[in-house]
Amino acid sequence: VSAAPIIQPVTLAADQCDRSYDIIIGQGTLAQAGDAIKQRLGCRRCVIVSDRNVAAHYGTPLQASLVAAGHHVFEPITISAGESSKNFVTLELILDQLLARRIDRNSVIIALGGGVVGDIAGLAAALALRGVPYVQIPTTLLAQVDSSVGGKTAIDHRLGKNMIGAFYQPQLVVIDAASLQTLPRRELQAGYAEIVKYGLINDVTFFDWCEKNGSLLLDGDTEKRLYAIHTSCAAKAAIVAADERETGQRALLNLGHTFGHALESALGFNDTLLHGEAVAIGCVLASKLSVALGLCQADVTARIAAHFAACGLPIRPPRHNYNIDQLMQLMAQDKKAMDSTLTLILLRGIGQAFVTKNVDASAIREIWQAVI
Amino acid sequence: VSAAPIIQPVTLAADQCDRSYDIIIGQGTLAQAGDAIKQRLGCRRCVIVSDRNVAAHYGTPLQASLVAAGHHVFEPITISAGESSKNFVTLELILDQLLARRIDRNSVIIALGGGVVGDIAGLAAALALRGVPYVQIPTTLLAQVDSSVGGKTAIDHRLGKNMIGAFYQPQLVVIDAASLQTLPRRELQAGYAEIVKYGLINDVTFFDWCEKNGSLLLDGDTEKRLYAIHTSCAAKAAIVAADERETGQRALLNLGHTFGHALESALGFNDTLLHGEAVAIGCVLASKLSVALGLCQADVTARIAAHFAACGLPIRPPRHNYNIDQLMQLMAQDKKAMDSTLTLILLRGIGQAFVTKNVDASAIREIWQAVI
Repeated sequence: VSAAPIIQPVTLAADQCDRSYDIIIGQGTLAQAGDAIKQRLGCRRCVIVSDRNVAAHYGTPLQASLVAAGHHVFEPITISAGESSKNFVTLELILDQLLARRIDRNSVIIALGGGVVGDIAGLAAALALRGVPYVQIPTTLLAQVDSSVGGKTAIDHRLGKNMIGAFYQPQLVVIDAASLQTLPRRELQAGYAEIVKYGLINDVTFFDWCEKNGSLLLDGDTEKRLYAIHTSCAAKAAIVAADERETGQRALLNLGHTFGHALESALGFNDTLLHGEAVAIGCVLASKLSVALGLCQADVTARIAAHFAACGLPIRPPRHNYNIDQLMQLMAQDKKAMDSTLTLILLRGIGQAFVTKNVDASAIREIWQAVI
Repeated sequence: VSAAPIIQPVTLAADQCDRSYDIIIGQGTLAQAGDAIKQRLGCRRCVIVSDRNVAAHYGTPLQASLVAAGHHVFEPITISAGESSKNFVTLELILDQLLARRIDRNSVIIALGGGVVGDIAGLAAALALRGVPYVQIPTTLLAQVDSSVGGKTAIDHRLGKNMIGAFYQPQLVVIDAASLQTLPRRELQAGYAEIVKYGLINDVTFFDWCEKNGSLLLDGDTEKRLYAIHTSCAAKAAIVAADERETGQRALLNLGHTFGHALESALGFNDTLLHGEAVAIGCVLASKLSVALGLCQADVTARIAAHFAACGLPIRPPRHNYNIDQLMQLMAQDKKAMDSTLTLILLRGIGQAFVTKNVDASAIREIWQAVI
């Protein structure tokens, strides 16, 4: 593996602020984070926001890298690990602690952790003093290939996941594939589901690559990991650049998410089903619905399900006392819903996803009926 | 007074969303709000957010105007009146109620009230589903000439006013001078201080006009009110258009605010000192400091103080057991502070304000010393 990291630019529509930024992808990039920030933003006053697990592994090396580059480093802010931290109380706690450190509008918040930390620390950065710069250092595969790029920040609400948040872009994303070494296999697999998603959306060649290399990636092959992370980030950067605020094509990134969110929500957002696992199931269900609607061939579902299953991902909802009316309502409450019309991402084939609003509710019910 | 309202456009830097919007200024425009929204956004699902006092006066006519234009109107959300509502608990309550009404990304939030309602409802709009459109209908003079225009939304924090918030522009501002009829004289005067501020910043002709017409305006002259509101909104629109996120010239709008915020904060943000009153005192103190630093002639302070006093506004801090160290610290904590350097707006004369970072702390202490 080459020592030189890949730099993937994210180019956003120009306005008075320069909101384009780089994604640095490599092995051992955490140690270069201080320099990478200095190169782009100069020496700053930095606050690391992390969760207790991640802070224990990577807090000290990150701090050392920042200090070595000449940044001033405030006392870090640490939250509890897990989705249950993505709430109003924790958001207020982070904001309290940021303000107590007397940050100013030049201070930089560094979100070190998985999707939960990135989402809530990014939202805190969006809100503190009406917005301070922030840097994403995602440490889970899911965060590296999805949530750290694109500026979606949020907390959850009892009526739905990510219901409260902001579109607020980071100044830089630093991805260190080495941080995946401490990630449990199950979380690695869950993150991998989002990688496969990019193939399903618009890149059949990449889906072919996944079928061939997915197991190697999961088993620890660094080169495969870096390739998949870069391909995913480049795909996401292209879609976000074209539609930052999800008025159109950005919704493609939600392939599998409308079904998936409904499941996560019905199960109470706990460890029964990780987000990436829900996305895997959701992709299978979206493909089943596409088949049922005559949009694509049945072998599409078979191929998707086979690959997820081969990678240890679930392909049907876990056993639970589901209520179809509730699942339907949870889907309708999705943030992408407009004027009470459900927006779905369906497939005309692998690599041929599209956004649609005209799906008959009874067809969706039948999909649920068949799998729960 | 002409029946045709004035339409003042606010033209923001172009990006992928069209974020420019109109300010409609007139007498009786509340009754036209439904049509004005329909004309610009089409028929929408609307939620009015207001406080109990304002809702009692203007909730029903606004609702009638919306319904008559064909909008769907959800049950309104009402908060307690007063600055103490600009907190995390009330923000969460508004978001809870918005989500409970099942708003979607096309729904429109209508902030009906003074600065508190506008600031917190605007922030709720920025955060709900990562941002839904909103309309400002300011009912106090202060909100009409200042806070409703420019997209600053916020709540307060114990460490400072407006410390948590977002830059988030409304889709439309509807200003009805008739709503000033129910405003207490003291609040009218406080709002008037922000009007005078625009003259002090860069328009000596308007300051002359204020000296001549301020009393008539406060006594109820509609034509004078409309002229002053329009001049103020046009001045603010020009400054915001040039610097939406306050990286430079927008800071001019904070003339009098750094001193003023410190006073409000030291007094605990209560009715001892209204925000506009603090701004009036702050403008006097900023001019005193400008004189002390040899930037302008002493008669500048005399002229400003004389006009504020003639309009019933305070020109020195109310009696209180102040601590100068605390006041200095409160000024330093101002959001405009960068890298712990205090930013101040000073005067080279009336209509000649400028932004500076290089003021000796001892000079500021002497100003406080002399007035408290």
